[in-house]
Amino acid sequence: MKSGGVWYSENLTETALLQYKIRKLIFSGETPYQKVEVIDTYDYGKCLILDGKLQSSLMDEWVYHEAIVHPALLTHPNPSNILIIGGGEGGILREVLKHNTVSSVVMVDLDKDVIEVSKKYLREICGDSFEDKRVKLIFGDGRSFLTNQPNNTYDVIIIDVTDPLEGGPSYLLYTKEFYTVVNEKLGSEGLMVTQATSIFHSLSCFSRIYKTVSVVFPLTSAYRVEVASYSSPWGFVLGSKKFSPEFLTVDEIDKKLELRGIKDLKFYDGKTHQSIFSLPKHLRKKLEEEEEIVTDDNPTFMVS
Amino acid sequence: MKSGGVWYSENLTETALLQYKIRKLIFSGETPYQKVEVIDTYDYGKCLILDGKLQSSLMDEWVYHEAIVHPALLTHPNPSNILIIGGGEGGILREVLKHNTVSSVVMVDLDKDVIEVSKKYLREICGDSFEDKRVKLIFGDGRSFLTNQPNNTYDVIIIDVTDPLEGGPSYLLYTKEFYTVVNEKLGSEGLMVTQATSIFHSLSCFSRIYKTVSVVFPLTSAYRVEVASYSSPWGFVLGSKKFSPEFLTVDEIDKKLELRGIKDLKFYDGKTHQSIFSLPKHLRKKLEEEEEIVTDDNPTFMVS
Amino acid sequence: MKSGGVWYSENLTETALLQYKIRKLIFSGETPYQKVEVIDTYDYGKCLILDGKLQSSLMDEWVYHEAIVHPALLTHPNPSNILIIGGGEGGILREVLKHNTVSSVVMVDLDKDVIEVSKKYLREICGDSFEDKRVKLIFGDGRSFLTNQPNNTYDVIIIDVTDPLEGGPSYLLYTKEFYTVVNEKLGSEGLMVTQATSIFHSLSCFSRIYKTVSVVFPLTSAYRVEVASYSSPWGFVLGSKKFSPEFLTVDEIDKKLELRGIKDLKFYDGKTHQSIFSLPKHLRKKLEEEEEIVTDDNPTFMVS
Amino acid sequence: MKSGGVWYSENLTETALLQYKIRKLIFSGETPYQKVEVIDTYDYGKCLILDGKLQSSLMDEWVYHEAIVHPALLTHPNPSNILIIGGGEGGILREVLKHNTVSSVVMVDLDKDVIEVSKKYLREICGDSFEDKRVKLIFGDGRSFLTNQPNNTYDVIIIDVTDPLEGGPSYLLYTKEFYTVVNEKLGSEGLMVTQATSIFHSLSCFSRIYKTVSVVFPLTSAYRVEVASYSSPWGFVLGSKKFSPEFLTVDEIDKKLELRGIKDLKFYDGKTHQSIFSLPKHLRKKLEEEEEIVTDDNPTFMVS
Repeated sequence: MKSGGVWYSENLTETALLQYKIRKLIFSGETPYQKVEVIDTYDYGKCLILDGKLQSSLMDEWVYHEAIVHPALLTHPNPSNILIIGGGEGGILREVLKHNTVSSVVMVDLDKDVIEVSKKYLREICGDSFEDKRVKLIFGDGRSFLTNQPNNTYDVIIIDVTDPLEGGPSYLLYTKEFYTVVNEKLGSEGLMVTQATSIFHSLSCFSRIYKTVSVVFPLTSAYRVEVASYSSPWGFVLGSKKFSPEFLTVDEIDKKLELRGIKDLKFYDGKTHQSIFSLPKHLRKKLEEEEEIVTDDNPTFMVS
Repeated sequence: MKSGGVWYSENLTETALLQYKIRKLIFSGETPYQKVEVIDTYDYGKCLILDGKLQSSLMDEWVYHEAIVHPALLTHPNPSNILIIGGGEGGILREVLKHNTVSSVVMVDLDKDVIEVSKKYLREICGDSFEDKRVKLIFGDGRSFLTNQPNNTYDVIIIDVTDPLEGGPSYLLYTKEFYTVVNEKLGSEGLMVTQATSIFHSLSCFSRIYKTVSVVFPLTSAYRVEVASYSSPWGFVLGSKKFSPEFLTVDEIDKKLELRGIKDLKFYDGKTHQSIFSLPKHLRKKLEEEEEIVTDDNPTFMVS
Repeated sequence: MKSGGVWYSENLTETALLQYKIRKLIFSGETPYQKVEVIDTYDYGKCLILDGKLQSSLMDEWVYHEAIVHPALLTHPNPSNILIIGGGEGGILREVLKHNTVSSVVMVDLDKDVIEVSKKYLREICGDSFEDKRVKLIFGDGRSFLTNQPNNTYDVIIIDVTDPLEGGPSYLLYTKEFYTVVNEKLGSEGLMVTQATSIFHSLSCFSRIYKTVSVVFPLTSAYRVEVASYSSPWGFVLGSKKFSPEFLTVDEIDKKLELRGIKDLKFYDGKTHQSIFSLPKHLRKKLEEEEEIVTDDNPTFMVS
Repeated sequence: MKSGGVWYSENLTETALLQYKIRKLIFSGETPYQKVEVIDTYDYGKCLILDGKLQSSLMDEWVYHEAIVHPALLTHPNPSNILIIGGGEGGILREVLKHNTVSSVVMVDLDKDVIEVSKKYLREICGDSFEDKRVKLIFGDGRSFLTNQPNNTYDVIIIDVTDPLEGGPSYLLYTKEFYTVVNEKLGSEGLMVTQATSIFHSLSCFSRIYKTVSVVFPLTSAYRVEVASYSSPWGFVLGSKKFSPEFLTVDEIDKKLELRGIKDLKFYDGKTHQSIFSLPKHLRKKLEEEEEIVTDDNPTFMVS
């Protein structure tokens, strides 16, 4: 009876399947956009799953959420107006609000129901971020919303949408055309950061996003973290107009965190910053050699 | 994303695993005796699962429950007092109560909670049987209960306990000593019937139960049905003091069903009876050649 | 490390997956028509697998092969010329050749390589049947071959092709048009028999094949056997011009087997015959109520 | 038929199962010590599997093998005599031999057959290292062998044995007593390095190994790399008598690699070194707080 019971099955690829046993199925529902499940697992604790893909687990959501937020916000000298595209479960919002420089956060997500589910079942992730007065929630398509905003509106734009899948809702948020819009809407010291898929199972996807951001922004950095519940290291790409996160020293990071009033991080600090921005040799080579630019007409997809 | 989602995993053996996708997890709990789950599946509909083993699915619970009840009750000329050992979800009770000769049913089950779960989530199986005035529920060990009953108490005893597993709660309800007690408590025209495990994955278990019953009862019959949700044909053994089900003709069965006031069966009738008692050649050979008698000191277990 | 190791995964349906552990992978190859694998498993012994579907296991291939051959051949008073369509591994051929009335067997299979694999790795199934002088092998499409044969050529035609799958090579061998051709090529006492898919996972497929045969042949019978390695009972449909297998008594069958010189069967005899042709009530009802006739323009598929 | 076919199942934990599809099963055998399998997979290429655990895949064995070898050998000013305990497939040997300072390598492995399998089926990993004249192979228990060596024999000792499992052959090579022996056998500038299990699924194991090495050696460093085919980041612990790898700068590493005549690395260089030795905040905290010392009487096991 060792294997008996309720398990979650997740296709890492078409030929790799991860199954983890479920302690409790907390919520299961279908929104107009996707299937939403909250489960409690033995290995990863409570998890949010969208369309069969694990998005966040209590075991290490903080690795992902700290990693996507703090490098960009610390690199900006005074991040005040922030835009989050996606990020429905609220972990990014939680981290952004920790910066005492932030006066306004707009969060645009397609799926209102994910936020409701998070508020009801995943308070460990979102805390009371959604109730913060600095926050404005908008439900709709991130690209359309951004296109209609005035230029120079935001200091930092964080893009945390689902992986680019053929026929999926997100692949047009990984293109040169979209990053060009992002660039216009950022102030002169602005930065953007986007999740950039697995650097193992979809390495070419990662390097193409890097290449694409780099033809739009003057300064581009790729970094990666170990999100064990994703079963492979995960990539991020950061595009900046003026300042690069790569020139920040360990000490500067730690000092800036203090000045921003941030003391409670579990994953990120100066030394972590140094580690995640130091890519191993083969990844640097892959990024240097990448030539393909992702456009609306030539999109990239997760399996590549 | 074809395989993604919540699945139930069941070990048919240590080296064969069946996984079926779950539409909805309806109930999951732990009683003092076992893990109890009610799930809705795509292939078998709603299912009751005890300790990781599918017990009943709406897709074909009626095959199993009609098969364990009607051959014994029809073979008895006037079954009035019935004892059910196990059978917590109430499907056996439902079928027994259809016989207009029945005036009293005692049901002894170890686990009160299974009955509560069935009443709450599996009314399609138990109907309102548990509320029938002829029924008396007793919670406790079937063997102890029976041992303390007066002799000649029951017309038919139906034994539907979990498979005999090492360390499990049921293996002492498959022994010669136990069947001897059963024999004593039956009237002079009495019969007993027991589930007798898979005739594929645990064939020797089936034939040993047959052999063991046959050293206690004057007349012993083995039969099997196709319970597709069990993934293999399933065996039953019937021990009788006076009448054998094998001499009943197709027409006699159909007539008796009518006289008993039973019209709504889905699986069982005269022709079905003929089929399930006609074992294929290799099974008859296996039963004939079996020599091992199961005793308290020499129990049989499911994996054999 | 209980679950660790090499397993075979087979989709019973899109939402039910059976996995069995492999002791040894004996052969794996790709023919022009399909993927062919021979594996040794813990639960079913050596198995032939085509396109991911278990076709024959040593544990119970004889149940299937005896069941598809002997009812038809015993019902025919003097079966001499036999046609087998499909049946590549040679188990059907082996059983057909046991009848001392048989003087010629033509076997038409699409895939020469399956026969070579069987001769090399599955001698336990095919024995030396392929070397028998009465046998003529033809490689090609069964329907085309049969269409070009003279009328009244065969006494028995056995159709054992893969399940009817959309886009698969076999679905046009389950239609009224095809059975009409079969009927023409049979002698006046002739019979055909076809495998008719799972009676659990694809019950409608089974009943439609029955209905379709019944509009072409004067006498039609459906029967089913328990092939445990298929994880559900399996159906067959038999169409006959003059004699019905359902009127043969247990004793007649046993006598006929003796007269035909057949003594070594493991599964089939008179009593087995009685059992497999006695369908349970719900299956009889399903067959009676079926109205859909399968035609070239309105084919049936396994998932239905 | 998406999931159909031959898969490898690996328990990451008792409640997490990874399954990857097999393109070809190349070798499967049982040695006196373990089950050995070489398979070709879609996601990881060719893989060596011992007792159901993936040890090396062509996709990223070089990440692991470069990571376990070069930090220790570069930290030592002039590594000449090297001992490898375990490392049967030869990847470590291959990397060690790249250092032009190395004059002798002793490799002690329990299982001669693994080396034969590697030479026959995994030449992409071992190359012709086993034929190098500087190499001496010894078959036997690493701890016994080392105990009987003279003191001050080796410059670097690399320990790459299987994970510490209860009842397994390796858990006594993760104890204080063993590291004390290692320490004695190293020269005055000597270093040891050991694999230290998953830092996700068995984090406490990792931190206990760190703590244990640190009570034996004056200088101890922990580092980790991303071996995606292990499905989680992997830890290493390095104990040193005189020099610490943590004080080497990016440029020093790159210069030393050049001096040693090493140009063909895929994963490791100065920047990679910086990254893998910069542990994220929560790992540093875990190491600092660890108090448990592993001894022969108080061993640590993988699941903890």
